[in-house]
Amino acid sequence: MDERIKKQLDFSLEIDKEKNIFRQTHLSGHGRNENDAEHAWHMAIMAYLLREYANEEVDILKVVLMCLIHDIVEIDAGDTYAYDTEALKTQKAREDAAKERIFSLLPDDQKEELTKLFDEFEEYQTPESRYAHAMDNLQPLILNNSNEGGDWKEHGVSATTVYSRQQKTKLGSEKLYEITDQILKENIAKGNLPE
Amino acid sequence: MDERIKKQLDFSLEIDKEKNIFRQTHLSGHGRNENDAEHAWHMAIMAYLLREYANEEVDILKVVLMCLIHDIVEIDAGDTYAYDTEALKTQKAREDAAKERIFSLLPDDQKEELTKLFDEFEEYQTPESRYAHAMDNLQPLILNNSNEGGDWKEHGVSATTVYSRQQKTKLGSEKLYEITDQILKENIAKGNLPE
Repeated sequence: MDERIKKQLDFSLEIDKEKNIFRQTHLSGHGRNENDAEHAWHMAIMAYLLREYANEEVDILKVVLMCLIHDIVEIDAGDTYAYDTEALKTQKAREDAAKERIFSLLPDDQKEELTKLFDEFEEYQTPESRYAHAMDNLQPLILNNSNEGGDWKEHGVSATTVYSRQQKTKLGSEKLYEITDQILKENIAKGNLPE
Repeated sequence: MDERIKKQLDFSLEIDKEKNIFRQTHLSGHGRNENDAEHAWHMAIMAYLLREYANEEVDILKVVLMCLIHDIVEIDAGDTYAYDTEALKTQKAREDAAKERIFSLLPDDQKEELTKLFDEFEEYQTPESRYAHAMDNLQPLILNNSNEGGDWKEHGVSATTVYSRQQKTKLGSEKLYEITDQILKENIAKGNLPE
């Protein structure tokens, strides 16, 4: 087996571990915790199906790829809950080290390509990254909404905190932010999310 | 919420159930059974990274989408193990009914688009579908190889049977079939796969 394909297959096997990184979100039907690979798969399909709502024209292949790879670093760095302020402080350093180790398994050109794509997602500066982030917010929201806000209740999260995070969806999609706002208001009204 | 986006979000929530459809393949590190959503995510990333080995030029966005959606029908139809000859007889009828029910949740244009993509994958007649099928074979192979052939041992599958399925990888990628052949030979030599 030549070196290039060996590296590609080593990386392919390594990312299998993302299926063991569990998130705070629960599957619909009051299911178990979701893992990162499932979350990424779900986001990628949603990104494709909802692309008409992106604020700006997007390269949809790039968005789908961003969605698929954006959590690979969590294989080493673990999942950082969006409302865990302590863990958020060390998140960047943990994820940078992980990015270097894991993407280095690939041939150099692909290491560079995936690193660039990951950084673009993190930096929030392009239409693709802003729209992909909207998916990163919307996907857990529809699951949590289907479970009567169980994830918010479990962590005692308030509407103010949730709105502050979800604001950024607006940067990627005004339309999906409208939907988000509607879902949040319904959950506040139902008592699933304290104001 | 207008009808179109409501349908898109209903479909998005429905496919969450794919995370509860478990396959015969086990995760690396002698892990638990893999589910369909994880398998699709893994295939999609591998398809992108290994696209240089496709026999023919492929529209890689189409391949990635095929990988992401090809098992959605199993939400209703269940997973059919590749070497379960009884279940294989009823697979098409079960999957057709599932396809109609699940894709009908979408707006008509997207129902039509996803149905076409699913059918194209199943029919094996385009470069994209042949290459996507190569991923459907290779992804579980690298997991099973990492687990010393545990999935073959569990089901008492022989090398002849495995080779017969993996033959088709050649149609999508001669190069990935060479790698497959090499991996299978190593497993036969190690006693993981009886001839």
